[in-house]
Amino acid sequence: MRLLEDRIRTDGKVRGGDVLKVDGFLNHMIDVRFVAELGREFYRLFKDCGINKILTIESSGIGVACLTAQFFDCPVVFAKKAKTKNIDADVYTASVFSYTHGRTYDIMVSKDYLGKGDRVLFIDDFLAKGAALIGIVDIVRQSGAELVGAGIVIEKAYQDGGERIRSLGVRVESLARIASMSEEGGIVFCD
Amino acid sequence: MRLLEDRIRTDGKVRGGDVLKVDGFLNHMIDVRFVAELGREFYRLFKDCGINKILTIESSGIGVACLTAQFFDCPVVFAKKAKTKNIDADVYTASVFSYTHGRTYDIMVSKDYLGKGDRVLFIDDFLAKGAALIGIVDIVRQSGAELVGAGIVIEKAYQDGGERIRSLGVRVESLARIASMSEEGGIVFCD
Repeated sequence: MRLLEDRIRTDGKVRGGDVLKVDGFLNHMIDVRFVAELGREFYRLFKDCGINKILTIESSGIGVACLTAQFFDCPVVFAKKAKTKNIDADVYTASVFSYTHGRTYDIMVSKDYLGKGDRVLFIDDFLAKGAALIGIVDIVRQSGAELVGAGIVIEKAYQDGGERIRSLGVRVESLARIASMSEEGGIVFCD
Repeated sequence: MRLLEDRIRTDGKVRGGDVLKVDGFLNHMIDVRFVAELGREFYRLFKDCGINKILTIESSGIGVACLTAQFFDCPVVFAKKAKTKNIDADVYTASVFSYTHGRTYDIMVSKDYLGKGDRVLFIDDFLAKGAALIGIVDIVRQSGAELVGAGIVIEKAYQDGGERIRSLGVRVESLARIASMSEEGGIVFCD
């Protein structure tokens, strides 16, 4: 998506440790009008898929998920990061390894809000190694819902997450796919 | 706001430990169309105040803040809960005592996204003892911005947070104000 690539080129900052900071419009300050345009694009891509629920993970996915959900006229469910090991029978849980923080955490979704008959679109800001999305695939499978696809704002296509998720049969649509990036060389997008 | 009070009566669940669960439309699953109506009401209340930025705290404030910001056509900045003590010179920080979790955590906002000249509306899902909002007042003061007001979805008016914040001169508008609640007696709203 040209609009997004231009914005990343203008406002994104490549930092050491494979970090792309897009805090100025997506992750800390949210340019709501701009992000709604990303939502409109997700709608264009998935509008014929019968989606009735959008799923994301707190925190940074929530804004884009809500602004996207308006086009689908459906609710958003956000998976919560569990503070403690949750053995509550009322929730689906999955473990996610965070490469950023070097530890495993649990995500959970209440059984009240996801289940058989739901057609789910997962929305998130980033896809890199795919750990969070693997956890989501697990939770949706537990619930009996169908994961129709994943709408990702920025995919680090030089990492293997996208390939892992696609090899599971999940349709992944990323609005910007980064082929490579470095502090010296800047950002190169996939064709 | 009648629409909200009705929804809380229908879908809210009072639990022990002074918990009002509104997970079904506000806090875990977000009824985006409904929450946008709350945003429209915040806009009606604050539309003549020259607001150019909406501030909230991750995670549960982000959805309502984004859906509200569309009416104001302004960006959202969400204060982040710091994982570690942040002594970065590039951020404003404040300490917040969480009564829910019984511990103090730090919130932070990048200096890039809040400063002199900004007219800020704080948006959040709950106001109870006001600890988070006290932290926000501190951060906005540090930044030189002006806190025009606070738009709260649900205020537990039987706790002292609202009074504390109003006594600081901050205009607080709560869409539902709970006078009392209990598992046996249900929810009573203020007149």
